[in-house]
Amino acid sequence: MTLRIAILGAGRIGKVHARAVASVPGAALVAVAEPMAEAAKQIRAEFDCDIREIDQIAASDDVDAVVICTPTDTHANLIEQFTAAGKAVFCEKPIDLNVARVRTCLKNVEATGGRLMLGFNRRFDPDFMALRAAIDDGRIGKVEMITLTSRDPGPPPYDYITRSGGIFRDMMIHDFDVARWLLGEEVTSVQAAASVLTDPEIGRLGDYDSVNVILTTDSGKQCTITNTRRAAYGYDQRIEVHGSNGSVSARNTHEANIEIADASGYHRPPLLNFFMTRYVTAYANEIAAFVQALESGSDMPTTGLDGLKALELAEAALKSVETGAAVQPG
Amino acid sequence: MTLRIAILGAGRIGKVHARAVASVPGAALVAVAEPMAEAAKQIRAEFDCDIREIDQIAASDDVDAVVICTPTDTHANLIEQFTAAGKAVFCEKPIDLNVARVRTCLKNVEATGGRLMLGFNRRFDPDFMALRAAIDDGRIGKVEMITLTSRDPGPPPYDYITRSGGIFRDMMIHDFDVARWLLGEEVTSVQAAASVLTDPEIGRLGDYDSVNVILTTDSGKQCTITNTRRAAYGYDQRIEVHGSNGSVSARNTHEANIEIADASGYHRPPLLNFFMTRYVTAYANEIAAFVQALESGSDMPTTGLDGLKALELAEAALKSVETGAAVQPG
Amino acid sequence: MTLRIAILGAGRIGKVHARAVASVPGAALVAVAEPMAEAAKQIRAEFDCDIREIDQIAASDDVDAVVICTPTDTHANLIEQFTAAGKAVFCEKPIDLNVARVRTCLKNVEATGGRLMLGFNRRFDPDFMALRAAIDDGRIGKVEMITLTSRDPGPPPYDYITRSGGIFRDMMIHDFDVARWLLGEEVTSVQAAASVLTDPEIGRLGDYDSVNVILTTDSGKQCTITNTRRAAYGYDQRIEVHGSNGSVSARNTHEANIEIADASGYHRPPLLNFFMTRYVTAYANEIAAFVQALESGSDMPTTGLDGLKALELAEAALKSVETGAAVQPG
Amino acid sequence: MTLRIAILGAGRIGKVHARAVASVPGAALVAVAEPMAEAAKQIRAEFDCDIREIDQIAASDDVDAVVICTPTDTHANLIEQFTAAGKAVFCEKPIDLNVARVRTCLKNVEATGGRLMLGFNRRFDPDFMALRAAIDDGRIGKVEMITLTSRDPGPPPYDYITRSGGIFRDMMIHDFDVARWLLGEEVTSVQAAASVLTDPEIGRLGDYDSVNVILTTDSGKQCTITNTRRAAYGYDQRIEVHGSNGSVSARNTHEANIEIADASGYHRPPLLNFFMTRYVTAYANEIAAFVQALESGSDMPTTGLDGLKALELAEAALKSVETGAAVQPG
Repeated sequence: MTLRIAILGAGRIGKVHARAVASVPGAALVAVAEPMAEAAKQIRAEFDCDIREIDQIAASDDVDAVVICTPTDTHANLIEQFTAAGKAVFCEKPIDLNVARVRTCLKNVEATGGRLMLGFNRRFDPDFMALRAAIDDGRIGKVEMITLTSRDPGPPPYDYITRSGGIFRDMMIHDFDVARWLLGEEVTSVQAAASVLTDPEIGRLGDYDSVNVILTTDSGKQCTITNTRRAAYGYDQRIEVHGSNGSVSARNTHEANIEIADASGYHRPPLLNFFMTRYVTAYANEIAAFVQALESGSDMPTTGLDGLKALELAEAALKSVETGAAVQPG
Repeated sequence: MTLRIAILGAGRIGKVHARAVASVPGAALVAVAEPMAEAAKQIRAEFDCDIREIDQIAASDDVDAVVICTPTDTHANLIEQFTAAGKAVFCEKPIDLNVARVRTCLKNVEATGGRLMLGFNRRFDPDFMALRAAIDDGRIGKVEMITLTSRDPGPPPYDYITRSGGIFRDMMIHDFDVARWLLGEEVTSVQAAASVLTDPEIGRLGDYDSVNVILTTDSGKQCTITNTRRAAYGYDQRIEVHGSNGSVSARNTHEANIEIADASGYHRPPLLNFFMTRYVTAYANEIAAFVQALESGSDMPTTGLDGLKALELAEAALKSVETGAAVQPG
Repeated sequence: MTLRIAILGAGRIGKVHARAVASVPGAALVAVAEPMAEAAKQIRAEFDCDIREIDQIAASDDVDAVVICTPTDTHANLIEQFTAAGKAVFCEKPIDLNVARVRTCLKNVEATGGRLMLGFNRRFDPDFMALRAAIDDGRIGKVEMITLTSRDPGPPPYDYITRSGGIFRDMMIHDFDVARWLLGEEVTSVQAAASVLTDPEIGRLGDYDSVNVILTTDSGKQCTITNTRRAAYGYDQRIEVHGSNGSVSARNTHEANIEIADASGYHRPPLLNFFMTRYVTAYANEIAAFVQALESGSDMPTTGLDGLKALELAEAALKSVETGAAVQPG
Repeated sequence: MTLRIAILGAGRIGKVHARAVASVPGAALVAVAEPMAEAAKQIRAEFDCDIREIDQIAASDDVDAVVICTPTDTHANLIEQFTAAGKAVFCEKPIDLNVARVRTCLKNVEATGGRLMLGFNRRFDPDFMALRAAIDDGRIGKVEMITLTSRDPGPPPYDYITRSGGIFRDMMIHDFDVARWLLGEEVTSVQAAASVLTDPEIGRLGDYDSVNVILTTDSGKQCTITNTRRAAYGYDQRIEVHGSNGSVSARNTHEANIEIADASGYHRPPLLNFFMTRYVTAYANEIAAFVQALESGSDMPTTGLDGLKALELAEAALKSVETGAAVQPG
């Protein structure tokens, strides 16, 4: 049986998810809701689906699930509306920037018995999945120390920074989730340092652009995360996990797999420069995983609780920057 | 305006091309011809196209071009039939195993003014295209020496070997085309060595499994090609071009971009093991290039003449193995 | 003119330095002092030098400089004795485990106008020097974020741990010095996390085996350091420096520069497993730098103050582990 | 007991061997013979040895072995003189450029029962030794196909080319020896192509600068060798051996093991640019192997016959270039 899906929001990421839905066997894109008429028509033309209002979709009998790609401040309300309407929900992270609002939302979802998956795309990257599989296969023994390196090629627009909740909530949130996914236990202590090194305006807007964090779990496992909003050589995305019997690392993806040698040395192309290009397969995989979980009735691979936990780590990191102290999240 | 395409032959490679046609903007898959009813229905179900007989397609007003994926011994006839019928033709290599037949076919195509592209997929691999772009950008100066390494993970079925024309015509044919593409001038001398090292049965069938070739052009550029029908670590596909100011190389594609370190050393996964997985993007790119050449009226990126030239190199290599002498192709 | 050098202490590291002295043009090994008669004789046999008592060497007219390789708790006294005696001094780190004692020692050295170099060998590793040269050449712009990874193949003997001052003072001390060398400004904040993950006995001895540190400077530059006392794949020694225009990294040294590909993937040998093998060139280079500084009268490349600063960072890290707080060193 | 060695010829390579002799335990450099007084004195000063005439050395009771580093056209005579005088001989390759002269020389050596090692340094390179060990350990199964890549950074002086016997005898001779060492059986067929691409003057002198060779053995193993006299990026020295169960490759040595990433991509330093730097350890190892073979009375690791066989392959390659035919060596 085909899972009938509607997309809420046809912006940049909405289009990515529409394409994923269209390509996943067992799923069909039946409708899109989008206030910008032009964008909505484009989706309709490309994927041969209806244009509907959000409330119409909530009431549609021919929609089994929705993919929420609207602005962040609408996420919690839409999650509540659609789970209450009996639709399965895939929502782009975050649920909300406010931890209390996230908690209420998750309680409401739980009350309805609704099914919610949160869009932490990195867990679905093929290289990161291979890294995780190597750990699960016992290739490195017991996980002890993790190093996550995430560097954006450049900063987002200033107005995004003012709305995003800052670097810990809009950027490191992904690393917090990856850390939890790989540590296999909850973090009990967060130590963070933060600076403004690339653009003073970022500081004036109340944010940082260069941050390091140490996470520690109860059993003493540690994870360091380094983030900056500038990397001349592209979108730098690396994971290294050190265990009792070895290490496993996932390496960067270059624009092409060639090497030039000349009088000045050996040269490889820069990294893929854009998160959508870098994670194009991950985006397709996560929608496929959503569809599969619904079809099989199995647990969602990433849940609302994962979203809450990552947000709590971001809050703890911010508090650690302000106080210098190690902060217990949650 | 949309280019309306039919697929002749819905076997393994036919499906790959059907998918490519369906995904290329500006092209539509309107029909498939395939004697195996089950395979034809599968294509119809997946791509929502008609099932028709080959002659019907040749007579169809709603078909602008065909993609020929039928057995090799039908290629020349179909090319002639469809170019005569005014259809543009994309044909999987080779046109025919017999050089004389290929020459006649190309003459007939020329007489009709028909348009023919030959499926040398490697020219459309993103890494090889980046390598070629580096050369064209002058990054290594003048091309002098080329090293091509192509190793199949394992041999094809015995019955394929008896029909394929042998390793020079079914396997090294790709390398001959890549060599011509990168040398930028025609080959005037072919020296070849051939052995049976992996399976004596291959020898009994009159073929070789391990071959090396040196190609030389009039200006003295040289290209070595090494082929074997066995590589324990996957599908080994490398190009290295040495020039007056440097070198450029295209490297292999591994199953995943991770590395594990343990007491026995550092370990990366094997190579992609199957030519369809390895060249999945190349197959999509070559169909897109076919569509674009038809839309823009520009020259076909790979022509029937390219097919002939590569086949002549294969003949010359065989003759060199038999005589020990350097052989002039053509 | 030849610089006449004596070695104090002919243990493992004493032999390394003796070999370095013997091979550096412009230097000569004239004497060794070593309580173990056998070890002393071995040095005498290999390098054709005298065996003398320490006090004899201090009084020798034919000794211009000494290299101190005796146990840590004798360093400060010997530095004072030999600088007072007018000898130039190269001393293995640390000067002392006690910060106050180090400060007194440095004051005493200063009072005599004596010349003292401290043995931070990593600054003299050819790869790390090339990394530093790339930074100095402006290849990565302004330094912003540094990641230091140092993992020992296995823990030292338990009795060493009880005498060494613990992982921050005996192991990370090298990384603290490298951090200062590359940051180019002093650290103002230290945040540290520490666990016992590899061997509970290490915890019972009051030490840790797995530690992470974030260093921050006044201008906001940050450096993370990760250390563990166990790495299955060898002696893991990496530096990565991220700057405004790019990054530079120094990579590990493997046992051999070969790669094996087989059905299970691609395999390289493990890392060099022993600090003396890994840093054999660095040890030779640092003695050459000592000799050159004395010959030219230029500043010592690593000073007593460098030793003090690194020790202060170790103290601050320990305090941060105990309190959870960010600690200002010094 | 110490092996007492004299060096004949104190040019560039003579100095390298003098240093090797001085550093090998169990060997002592007792004398040097060199017509250039300055060069001889330098060796005497550095290694504290005598200066003697060649005939004096042949008559010296305190010399057990000699290392011949004189011009090529003196090699055969000196080998005969010194083996007749009862000295063990290490001689730089080649014995002579004339195959007949080499054969006579070897017969004369055999008649005296003298011991002769030929300086094929590459067999003693640590990476190549590790590659060979991997093969001997069965890591890749049975050897089937070998690819040798040797590119010099730039051409030798013109007058060297006129005396050297040309690219096959002065440069590829090393690869011929490596091929024999790794193939494990004799070559029965040589096919070669040769061009002048880097400098027309090289052609006017009767030599080539760009050559490819295919070697085939009786059992059908094949080896390709590519040589050029120009590589912008340094001294390119690679081996790849393909076997029934996998492959092993030895990779190049860069000036430093660092990588810089910036807006234009990822950059590593060029290769070591000079054969003496690249093979410094190999030169030391081969002298150590000579001394060890003499001490233990075991077979010489590289013999006069190895020199003859490599020269025969060079002759066969030249003849193949002239005739186009596959040539049987010997």
